[in-house]
Amino acid sequence: MLGGTLAAAILPVTSSFAKYIQVGVPADDPTKRIGLGPSKLGTRSPFESPLRKPSDISSRSPLQDFYSTITPADLHFERHHAGIPNIDPKQYELLIHGMVERPMKFSLADLKRFPSVTKTCFIECAGNFRTGKEEMTPQDILGLTSQSEWTGVMLSTIFREVGADSKATWFLAEGGDASVMTRSIPAHKGWEDAMIVYAQNGEAIRPAQGYPARLLLPGYEGNMNVKWLRRLELSDQPWMTREETSKYTYPVKDKIRMFSFEMDARSIITFPSFPQKVERGWIEIRGIAWTGRGKIVKVEVSTDAGKTWNEARLQEPVLDKAHTYFRHLWQWNGDDTEILSRAIDETGYIQPTLRQLVDARGTDMGGYHMNPITSWQIKRNGSVLFKPENFK
Amino acid sequence: MLGGTLAAAILPVTSSFAKYIQVGVPADDPTKRIGLGPSKLGTRSPFESPLRKPSDISSRSPLQDFYSTITPADLHFERHHAGIPNIDPKQYELLIHGMVERPMKFSLADLKRFPSVTKTCFIECAGNFRTGKEEMTPQDILGLTSQSEWTGVMLSTIFREVGADSKATWFLAEGGDASVMTRSIPAHKGWEDAMIVYAQNGEAIRPAQGYPARLLLPGYEGNMNVKWLRRLELSDQPWMTREETSKYTYPVKDKIRMFSFEMDARSIITFPSFPQKVERGWIEIRGIAWTGRGKIVKVEVSTDAGKTWNEARLQEPVLDKAHTYFRHLWQWNGDDTEILSRAIDETGYIQPTLRQLVDARGTDMGGYHMNPITSWQIKRNGSVLFKPENFK
Repeated sequence: MLGGTLAAAILPVTSSFAKYIQVGVPADDPTKRIGLGPSKLGTRSPFESPLRKPSDISSRSPLQDFYSTITPADLHFERHHAGIPNIDPKQYELLIHGMVERPMKFSLADLKRFPSVTKTCFIECAGNFRTGKEEMTPQDILGLTSQSEWTGVMLSTIFREVGADSKATWFLAEGGDASVMTRSIPAHKGWEDAMIVYAQNGEAIRPAQGYPARLLLPGYEGNMNVKWLRRLELSDQPWMTREETSKYTYPVKDKIRMFSFEMDARSIITFPSFPQKVERGWIEIRGIAWTGRGKIVKVEVSTDAGKTWNEARLQEPVLDKAHTYFRHLWQWNGDDTEILSRAIDETGYIQPTLRQLVDARGTDMGGYHMNPITSWQIKRNGSVLFKPENFK
Repeated sequence: MLGGTLAAAILPVTSSFAKYIQVGVPADDPTKRIGLGPSKLGTRSPFESPLRKPSDISSRSPLQDFYSTITPADLHFERHHAGIPNIDPKQYELLIHGMVERPMKFSLADLKRFPSVTKTCFIECAGNFRTGKEEMTPQDILGLTSQSEWTGVMLSTIFREVGADSKATWFLAEGGDASVMTRSIPAHKGWEDAMIVYAQNGEAIRPAQGYPARLLLPGYEGNMNVKWLRRLELSDQPWMTREETSKYTYPVKDKIRMFSFEMDARSIITFPSFPQKVERGWIEIRGIAWTGRGKIVKVEVSTDAGKTWNEARLQEPVLDKAHTYFRHLWQWNGDDTEILSRAIDETGYIQPTLRQLVDARGTDMGGYHMNPITSWQIKRNGSVLFKPENFK
């Protein structure tokens, strides 16, 4: 490949890669210098550096850097309860017991022998909403949602293997990390589309997402998709665990909403968004929409602060319980305005405004299951700012 | 999150991440030690290390490590002509000229202003076939195929913008690397589904795949999907470039086949494959099938050396010109046998045996567009070996 005439320009070296070292050619013309050779692992361009934004308990996905709906595995959001355990897959075991005919333990190799299935869907943290100032990115506002192509075994297959009692109405999922996270899950979800997944975006699941295996409950709030899954127990009642009493429970006016499984329909425009700049003329407004209740059927975009709405194009194929990319072509005349999007799902649910959420749930609503319409202010100078709304 | 009782077990440190350092707890129980905290970029488990296999001119994807069809970007195969250029996206320009009304140059930002589209499809090297010994993995045999979720602008959109002449029957694509790779492409492909893509699996395209922008010709042989695309020229005839005369041209009996665009239907079983081991009982046979001519409609699996065939399950949704995952549940009785798969696409094309390929093309066929059925030998001791067939 790199024949005679090139050889003279290349330094004599020992490594087979290092022979591509670039010498004596100005940097400004890439056609005049041999580039880097083949490698075992690729890297990003030095001109691109998408990064999660970590806090003490989470890290947020850089949604504004994404052009479609698969989240690169190293940028998947994290929500921590006691950090990421380092689990040896050869030591891994999953116990299934309770209201079953045959309590069993499965190794990772056992799980991989069952018929496998692939499902592309989002996982979103139940507490995925921040507001407060204009200088906020999509990552800051709702970066606790990500999407992967998950592969594993249907939980219904495992239920059949152990002889799950049809009178069992709940099951407990327990994680093998230091928080020993536990959640009660309705048994019907286990029979429907729940999975035990060991792969993410084609390869082995990443440690931060539950290596070597996690529970996947498509559309349900993130914390229930228990990572580092080590135990499932079937029962005829919920457990009232620490995580479902001290957390993931919130006031709705004078009542407490305890089990709120499905994530409501939601959308956000990721381009343009803070801190991007726009120019007068054609702008393709782009973003993601999703719902825990099935498919997105429509996304509407307003470019006049909500006075009128236009139907956005949805990227096909639209998948069940999945981030769905939407696009709307807009000609900006250079005036101040606001752009916003709202998602509509196959149940007919329409993404609400923050005002509607507060009216329905009261001001002391906690931070869970907040899915308000997100507005961006477009300024005459082309700058884009989040529009933080008054909570009270 | 990490409250009072945990604090005592944690060393006082300065970094916010280092507080998760693990002290005084045995390694064998991950529930008894706080794990690693949130980070800017995730990593693989230390127990998993999928790697490409580099040679001087290429690196091959570890197909046997994949559980579904998106290739993680850092494991996408590479085929090098003069290495990977390091291109500053701010300096990037794409020239379009020839039989057009308005020759134009586009910056990367210009390209991103056009309506965008996402397409999940494979790219496969025209020379993707190796044989010769039993100790070969899927990566060794045909690791020069990978799949990504690509995002960019339809070439037809750009053709309209520059006023492409309807009498132009070909266009030239030229790369901006040191090989200045050039290929002639039929104009109808440009009007149909060709794209200029700047994103891969959600994020900016990787340097090894053409950063900041490449041509995408769904289903066409890999080298025509010109990386680091810097020039398109429209004409009413092909160019007969170096790459289409010295390479990517091959004998078919007493003739030379010069322009062979579409990749033929193909499949391979990736599990079980060398050097994996199997156990008696249920085995889910898994693999990928693809075709450059549309969708895969059927994959058949034989577990008795080709005497009888069974229809495999295809993972939905089956996409156009895309790696399609197939699965077939098989009960192995422990005897020596051979397992193999064949793909059938929507044109009715059936993946041939090596014998059929040699009979049709002659023994001096060159190494291009070889898509023979791949057989694995299952040995009584559970070992799996490639079955290298005689070429002559």
